[in-house]
Amino acid sequence: MKGLAILGSTGSVGRQALEVARAFPDRLRVVGLAAGRNVALLAEQVREFRPAVVATVGARELEAVLAPAERPVILEGEEGLLRVAAWPEVDIVLVAVTGVAGLLPTLAALKAGKEVALANKETLVAGGELVTALAGRAGRLLRPVDSEHSAIWQCLQGSRWEEVRELVLTASGGPFRTYSRTTLAGVTPEEALRHPNWRMGPKITVDSATLMNKGLEIIEAHWLFGIDYDRIRVVIHPQSIVHSLVVFRDGAVLAQLGVPDMRLPIQYALSYPERWGPLCEAPDLVALGALTFEAPDEERFPALRLARDAGKTGGTLPAVLNAANEVAVAAFLGRRLPFTGIAEVVARVMDRHHTVSHPTLEDIMAADGWARRLAETLIAKVTS
Amino acid sequence: MKGLAILGSTGSVGRQALEVARAFPDRLRVVGLAAGRNVALLAEQVREFRPAVVATVGARELEAVLAPAERPVILEGEEGLLRVAAWPEVDIVLVAVTGVAGLLPTLAALKAGKEVALANKETLVAGGELVTALAGRAGRLLRPVDSEHSAIWQCLQGSRWEEVRELVLTASGGPFRTYSRTTLAGVTPEEALRHPNWRMGPKITVDSATLMNKGLEIIEAHWLFGIDYDRIRVVIHPQSIVHSLVVFRDGAVLAQLGVPDMRLPIQYALSYPERWGPLCEAPDLVALGALTFEAPDEERFPALRLARDAGKTGGTLPAVLNAANEVAVAAFLGRRLPFTGIAEVVARVMDRHHTVSHPTLEDIMAADGWARRLAETLIAKVTS
Repeated sequence: MKGLAILGSTGSVGRQALEVARAFPDRLRVVGLAAGRNVALLAEQVREFRPAVVATVGARELEAVLAPAERPVILEGEEGLLRVAAWPEVDIVLVAVTGVAGLLPTLAALKAGKEVALANKETLVAGGELVTALAGRAGRLLRPVDSEHSAIWQCLQGSRWEEVRELVLTASGGPFRTYSRTTLAGVTPEEALRHPNWRMGPKITVDSATLMNKGLEIIEAHWLFGIDYDRIRVVIHPQSIVHSLVVFRDGAVLAQLGVPDMRLPIQYALSYPERWGPLCEAPDLVALGALTFEAPDEERFPALRLARDAGKTGGTLPAVLNAANEVAVAAFLGRRLPFTGIAEVVARVMDRHHTVSHPTLEDIMAADGWARRLAETLIAKVTS
Repeated sequence: MKGLAILGSTGSVGRQALEVARAFPDRLRVVGLAAGRNVALLAEQVREFRPAVVATVGARELEAVLAPAERPVILEGEEGLLRVAAWPEVDIVLVAVTGVAGLLPTLAALKAGKEVALANKETLVAGGELVTALAGRAGRLLRPVDSEHSAIWQCLQGSRWEEVRELVLTASGGPFRTYSRTTLAGVTPEEALRHPNWRMGPKITVDSATLMNKGLEIIEAHWLFGIDYDRIRVVIHPQSIVHSLVVFRDGAVLAQLGVPDMRLPIQYALSYPERWGPLCEAPDLVALGALTFEAPDEERFPALRLARDAGKTGGTLPAVLNAANEVAVAAFLGRRLPFTGIAEVVARVMDRHHTVSHPTLEDIMAADGWARRLAETLIAKVTS
């Protein structure tokens, strides 16, 4: 029986993690929840799972809607989030908040000696060096929740790291895979949010359409698996069935396949080293007929190249890439920036950044703030 | 440094195993070789690899062609084969002889406490119960060399057996995958020997064309992995890149992929638990474009059903299936039986067999002999 804290419980990954917890009540006990402003849903979750502690920016509101007998310890905002991450009865913390906000609670959980299941890729993109150093010191394994990294992790079980030649991340290619550059310039947020295979939150869905999601995953893979950027490749696989592959030095390849259902990697991160079941049906290869693969086009989807460049440079540059991207995606969703403007804004912010090597947490947060402000300024110029 | 004996060194698998030994002279020492009548090739192998002991049916001939300084201990025939399998400096025995002839040396190697890499599937088909019981008592792992079973074995590394839901064996479908029943009746040995993907010996190539090879592999998988027949499925995959898959209980699937090159599974069986490299290039998924999957058609390829039935009944019936098939394939290659006659002969011999449960080695050999005689009789009737 593991004590589980879910940071970001009202988001897409958080809700699916609670589906897993609901399916395995004898294996997982929900000890802590943390969420933003969706107090109505959070209250429902509290009533069903009876956690010991909850953190939310709407603490007072939550207290008001819950009957006294239903109330856990209710904490406020960011500070509360960090306390939930380090709460005593918690064994494993699922970090499923959006954006760079995942960094501090991840560090807090690791410092408190918790297992960390990481659904937030920005944490490793911005703070990879800090986070992996701390995890290493704590003798902790960061458990990936992204389907791609989970796939690689599953393929590596029972293998020796020195026998790995290359990691291959698959990408669906998103809804605009076949669009020309001209057509791409005119796509709407509604079109970008229609992901062909996965149900995910809006930010990551737009990142899938620009391929920035895959770019961030390259950086994430670099930190999670301690592998050079030159040995991480991306292949477009529109069916999203093969979630990623590992090429070994003898030429053998292991691949993990599954239906595109985030509950599968979420559950594996929680059940590891076991597998619980049944959760999902396995993919029916005969019904699928064909699994196809293409090379990514970095001309139409420059985000991939930008992310790889940022990763190779390292230091504060990945944090800058990520921050500028978050602002640009929000601007696109708010119709203040065309789709192709996202990568343009990111590239211009990166160009102007003076990278700090081996950054401290303060350096990272400063670079993040600087990049956000510059991105906003650049977007404001475009809009006006 | 492992001492290696190769039984069947002049056959296709034996020759490729020697390529592996040549590539890794600091890891593998060829201690013993055994071969049939190809004395010229065997003499070459002796000159290159300098084994301590050699067995062949052409012992005198071999002695004659080798200079005194080049001569290892030379043993004669079947008896010699068994002594090579149990030779003191041998650590691992690769059983790569064709047909049911692999059974006795496999038992001899296990009794002598050797690791056994099994390229001969008839050994497990005919003697699965005996061989796995002996391997289990000796605390030995049978190392599969068939690409499909090697794939499953690789996918199982680091997993728990109770977490496996299903094994999926892939089959290329052979050269006649799309042929109608009528067209199948008229195909020639030359056509059957033109395998689309693999370079293998003639017997197994014909078995690939009838799908009997996959049928034998179902029985082999049952014994190697101790899994019910109802949890072993076959999927046609014409590209022969995905070598097989394991479905776990959470719905996750692991697959092993590789170029169709037997040296890869041969090497893994010898290098396990390590991987040595580089041996082969990894498959290029983008160049391949698509990996396709179809359901097998058991009407056009009844061998699959016959093998599954034989496996489920067990006892001496799989040995009978195998023996009748060996005779029928030889008759087809000798133009004494049409292609579709192979499965017909096997079915008729199976129909007439009175299965002995939990057979001894003598029961198996008797059933094998009985099936061969009956198959010959049936074929003679067809021919006359």
